[in-house]
Amino acid sequence: MSKIFIHDNFLLESTIAEQLYHQVACKLPIIDYHNHINPQFLLGINSFENIFQLWLRDDPYKHRAMRILGVNEQLITGNSSDKEKFLQWSKVLPKTIGNPLFHWSCLELKRFFGIDEILSENNAEDIWVRCNKIIQNNQFNIVELLKRMNVEVLCTSDDLLDNLKIHQSATEFAKTITVKPSLRADSLFSFDKHWIVKLSQQTNINIESLESYKKAIQQKLDLFDNAGCIMSDHSLDSGFIFISTKEHDADKIFKQIIKGETISTQEKIVLNSYLLDYLGQEYASRDWSMQLHIGAKRDTNSLLRIKIGSAGGYASLGDSQSISSLIGFLDGLSLKRKLPKTILFNLNPADNAKFATLMGSFPKEGVSGNLQFGPAWWYNDHYQGNINQLTDFANYGIFGSFIGMTTDSRSILSFSRHEYFRRILCNQLGIWVTKGHVPADFEMLKEIVEGVSYKNINNWLYKKYENEN
Amino acid sequence: MSKIFIHDNFLLESTIAEQLYHQVACKLPIIDYHNHINPQFLLGINSFENIFQLWLRDDPYKHRAMRILGVNEQLITGNSSDKEKFLQWSKVLPKTIGNPLFHWSCLELKRFFGIDEILSENNAEDIWVRCNKIIQNNQFNIVELLKRMNVEVLCTSDDLLDNLKIHQSATEFAKTITVKPSLRADSLFSFDKHWIVKLSQQTNINIESLESYKKAIQQKLDLFDNAGCIMSDHSLDSGFIFISTKEHDADKIFKQIIKGETISTQEKIVLNSYLLDYLGQEYASRDWSMQLHIGAKRDTNSLLRIKIGSAGGYASLGDSQSISSLIGFLDGLSLKRKLPKTILFNLNPADNAKFATLMGSFPKEGVSGNLQFGPAWWYNDHYQGNINQLTDFANYGIFGSFIGMTTDSRSILSFSRHEYFRRILCNQLGIWVTKGHVPADFEMLKEIVEGVSYKNINNWLYKKYENEN
Amino acid sequence: MSKIFIHDNFLLESTIAEQLYHQVACKLPIIDYHNHINPQFLLGINSFENIFQLWLRDDPYKHRAMRILGVNEQLITGNSSDKEKFLQWSKVLPKTIGNPLFHWSCLELKRFFGIDEILSENNAEDIWVRCNKIIQNNQFNIVELLKRMNVEVLCTSDDLLDNLKIHQSATEFAKTITVKPSLRADSLFSFDKHWIVKLSQQTNINIESLESYKKAIQQKLDLFDNAGCIMSDHSLDSGFIFISTKEHDADKIFKQIIKGETISTQEKIVLNSYLLDYLGQEYASRDWSMQLHIGAKRDTNSLLRIKIGSAGGYASLGDSQSISSLIGFLDGLSLKRKLPKTILFNLNPADNAKFATLMGSFPKEGVSGNLQFGPAWWYNDHYQGNINQLTDFANYGIFGSFIGMTTDSRSILSFSRHEYFRRILCNQLGIWVTKGHVPADFEMLKEIVEGVSYKNINNWLYKKYENEN
Repeated sequence: MSKIFIHDNFLLESTIAEQLYHQVACKLPIIDYHNHINPQFLLGINSFENIFQLWLRDDPYKHRAMRILGVNEQLITGNSSDKEKFLQWSKVLPKTIGNPLFHWSCLELKRFFGIDEILSENNAEDIWVRCNKIIQNNQFNIVELLKRMNVEVLCTSDDLLDNLKIHQSATEFAKTITVKPSLRADSLFSFDKHWIVKLSQQTNINIESLESYKKAIQQKLDLFDNAGCIMSDHSLDSGFIFISTKEHDADKIFKQIIKGETISTQEKIVLNSYLLDYLGQEYASRDWSMQLHIGAKRDTNSLLRIKIGSAGGYASLGDSQSISSLIGFLDGLSLKRKLPKTILFNLNPADNAKFATLMGSFPKEGVSGNLQFGPAWWYNDHYQGNINQLTDFANYGIFGSFIGMTTDSRSILSFSRHEYFRRILCNQLGIWVTKGHVPADFEMLKEIVEGVSYKNINNWLYKKYENEN
Repeated sequence: MSKIFIHDNFLLESTIAEQLYHQVACKLPIIDYHNHINPQFLLGINSFENIFQLWLRDDPYKHRAMRILGVNEQLITGNSSDKEKFLQWSKVLPKTIGNPLFHWSCLELKRFFGIDEILSENNAEDIWVRCNKIIQNNQFNIVELLKRMNVEVLCTSDDLLDNLKIHQSATEFAKTITVKPSLRADSLFSFDKHWIVKLSQQTNINIESLESYKKAIQQKLDLFDNAGCIMSDHSLDSGFIFISTKEHDADKIFKQIIKGETISTQEKIVLNSYLLDYLGQEYASRDWSMQLHIGAKRDTNSLLRIKIGSAGGYASLGDSQSISSLIGFLDGLSLKRKLPKTILFNLNPADNAKFATLMGSFPKEGVSGNLQFGPAWWYNDHYQGNINQLTDFANYGIFGSFIGMTTDSRSILSFSRHEYFRRILCNQLGIWVTKGHVPADFEMLKEIVEGVSYKNINNWLYKKYENEN
Repeated sequence: MSKIFIHDNFLLESTIAEQLYHQVACKLPIIDYHNHINPQFLLGINSFENIFQLWLRDDPYKHRAMRILGVNEQLITGNSSDKEKFLQWSKVLPKTIGNPLFHWSCLELKRFFGIDEILSENNAEDIWVRCNKIIQNNQFNIVELLKRMNVEVLCTSDDLLDNLKIHQSATEFAKTITVKPSLRADSLFSFDKHWIVKLSQQTNINIESLESYKKAIQQKLDLFDNAGCIMSDHSLDSGFIFISTKEHDADKIFKQIIKGETISTQEKIVLNSYLLDYLGQEYASRDWSMQLHIGAKRDTNSLLRIKIGSAGGYASLGDSQSISSLIGFLDGLSLKRKLPKTILFNLNPADNAKFATLMGSFPKEGVSGNLQFGPAWWYNDHYQGNINQLTDFANYGIFGSFIGMTTDSRSILSFSRHEYFRRILCNQLGIWVTKGHVPADFEMLKEIVEGVSYKNINNWLYKKYENEN
């Protein structure tokens, strides 16, 4: 065993796994098809003064870990100094073994700062100095780092009202990296007064009915399309219900909202169902893909929400998702020949087999993997969670159709997770070969690795399909 | 590692596993207690012209895999030639690693055609020719193949209205193989007009009330009993609800149906509950076993259903089954001293532990394993799914009571899955021994292997029990 | 491999695992924070005449195993002689491989009676004699055995009306072992007439409203507190629903009960919710911890219940628990700044990830692991179930905060399960190190093992926390 924790063959337990990783996987470009990167970062604007600001300040995973261990909020998001907070984190890290934070943190320090030691109380002062030197000497050039990691495409998450010009500028600045906007559609379902007013102003459409709302949305979708958008994204939180709905019924409810009347939970479901179905059709018409992030339970600790805001790492897993509602939604689109390519990201792993099997229910001629059981999402993105997703995908679906990993992260440092995923992928194939479950046929395995790491997502996103029937 | 993929010790990772498989498991007869074999096949009638017709044409698993990969329907079930479809499948197979199709296909080609290579685009032409030669030279004698595999009993799936004489003829023709009909009871719950008319005609009973319906059913059940039936089978699809119901209430609903009136979902549940409870009692009276296949979600893709029929491989997993409904049904029978021996086949693996634990709730004096958590079913019948079922059975129940594997398949080739199961079984015991979880006591392990492979199902089906109390 | 099954390195598969177990884990004291030990046993009162009475007579797990295998009830709890029943169990044991009973039984015979052989039909006579000799020669001194196992604290389960003086006497008798009462609160929710009359008599409070009921409860809680109670315990059985409730509404329902009127299921939920919330606040005020045992389905086989009573081993796993109800309960307390330290014991393993993730939702400053996903409970307390709990805890929570194992058993012999747990813990760390998932840093791992085995529960129970905010 290497003395260095993140050594060349980290997570690779067999010769075939090593070969697949080093000769195939690690050389392939990255298409990160869903993340929350601020495209500003790609314009070379780097405002981080130290490792805390870059690495800890905005990371709800690390905040969550510290809270679980009873750390005072002052040392997490409060008034303590950046350095004090970093030192506190150094005490926490060794207790996170098993949690992805441990591997991620080690990988991030190694790949971006060359740190071989495991961060701990004992070496925290030293590592603080070494990392900050790199950041402060402006050696931390984000675009260069992404290029070094062979990033080819980035799809960010953007509100319908966001300015999309920055993606074009970022693409031009970065040159070999294409930065694409993606529609994060959740605000379309919030029916927030101010948001609707802004939408109305930006589109010059007077929004007083569902029809006008849809017109305004369409105008915006076209702008996204022109800006290179190929992905949309919806959160179908815990308890998602879909009811096939006529425009007339949805319109009545929409108008109540516009008038400022409150609507019932049931009415909200009806309106949301209509809108979701409408948007699905719009995506299909533009040949976008639709991402569904299913099963989050976001309203947990009311006090923490008040104290630290809505994205504080205290969200949890919801109950198992009703398959009938999900199928009702997908089948409704399919019947209209308007089911876009779709990725189901699943938060409650008790539903993994259910979602993985569903891949066989909505195939499409000419598209490999039309419905995808997406990679291990959020809290599931740990070592075992990745293996569970890979093996469930393989057991219940067809492994060779998997479009692979995306970071879903706001941090540039998270791009090292593609390495993490590819190592796990190659090692899993190695395990299968070693146990004799899969033939030791390098060419055959190479195709699988190439497909899952890069080629499948590339085909899936960019191949235009004609054989609709 | 052997260069041949399906070598003698395929899936056997330890010496003890090899010994258990080669000295014990592989020598035991097969009792396939639930399958969908056409008994005609056992009369020596063999109408297959080529490997496609025998191996691909009627296999919804393989069709599903091809659809997931975007293959044009023409090359799956459409107008393309048999050979074109076979060649297409050869391209798909290498992408299915992890899915049971990969192992099953390799096993089937090896055991029935002596093919050692992995089928792929490169060797498909050659394998097409070699397999067809065997089929066309009439070397593919189904009865001989079953005998070679040491098949002792086959329980087919038969509608209440089916002709059962063919089972007797098949048994006589095959000589050492007993072919038994089993009742697939789903049509009793469809209340299809034409089916009820036929039942009425065949039994000479005028069906106008639940009482007459039951009389007609009883007459038929007696015919099944006389024809050697020892198993019944019900699909309790996703969302199964049981409500304890009086005959009077069920009869009212039944009469509405007979009159051609539509009934509500709730009324359907009430009627179904009554009928299910009634049938359970009838099975117990005849000492039949009751199979419950729980959790399928069959209505998924409406377009595919229209295009390729009701069994096209696009069904999926339903939500977790309500344990109260299941217990309500079983306990109702138990209270009447009429709970038959029962097998719970489970489709959503999130329910595995729940069903496995339930084995402790409905024991019966004199019967080992009165309530069975059945072997890995349908989409779960992959390598890991089998291990999950075996280990959940062992962890939450008593392993030595397991009645083991059945194919649940319409294909003769699927009998090689008994080999697959037994290898997994022996290997799992080998893993336990190797890790020191189980003593390396060959005699003790031999008893387990003999029990789970053959003796338990043999006792379970054929031993008459007296100690009801 | 050692020829002795329970050898020194049983379950330890690597050198690091061996080191962690023998140098660290096995030397640490035991805090068994939840069990059903009869404190009488600790007064040196030993009424067992033979190994059957000590080992089999009161063990519903073993009874359940025998029933599953079809053993006649006479040989389980009936009129057969103690020896006959013991001999019957010896036939059953080899069939239980995989089930925790196998390991537990071997460990118990080894640690308490020095038996190295696996009990079976062949050696049962001999083992019967050897064990009985030890028991009858009064060498089976319970207090000495607990001391030898390094037991430091025992928290028993006690009804609100129980006499708590015996705990003090037991503590005094055992000297180095502290015996603490814990409140098993289920009878507070039964609203049993006789129980309420007794409560009224014992407290001298006339119970005719919720207010007086609460007063009586408070008086008793104070007695528990004075007697050293630091833990409470609730069964939230399958289908637990929580509805935020006002005292006024609950009081109306309570008064109906007092009047002898029947109340609806919905009213029961409302009253229970109020009372649960009330008790949670009381626990927090006294700095007690709250244990929630979630998901049992106790009403399964009505005949068995009649025949063998309410704790006969025929209970099963309930459906997945609604996370909203659980969160509603916890958040309600949290909003009032009255959420006690809480342990979620989970019976349906499909909910493991859900409960493990929830640990991030209710942290508390100054408390490490304020909300705990408890150790593998009841039917899940098998080898794989322990690993699943440990790895889910680590994957979705922060491993270093885990308070570890408790027996939840009524048997003194079950204390060997702490050894079982610690071996599994050390081995899991060894697996991680061997695979390179965790650095081979003995000091770091030692801290984890010390924490999970002893220090975390010690801090959790005894450290007084001030930083409420």
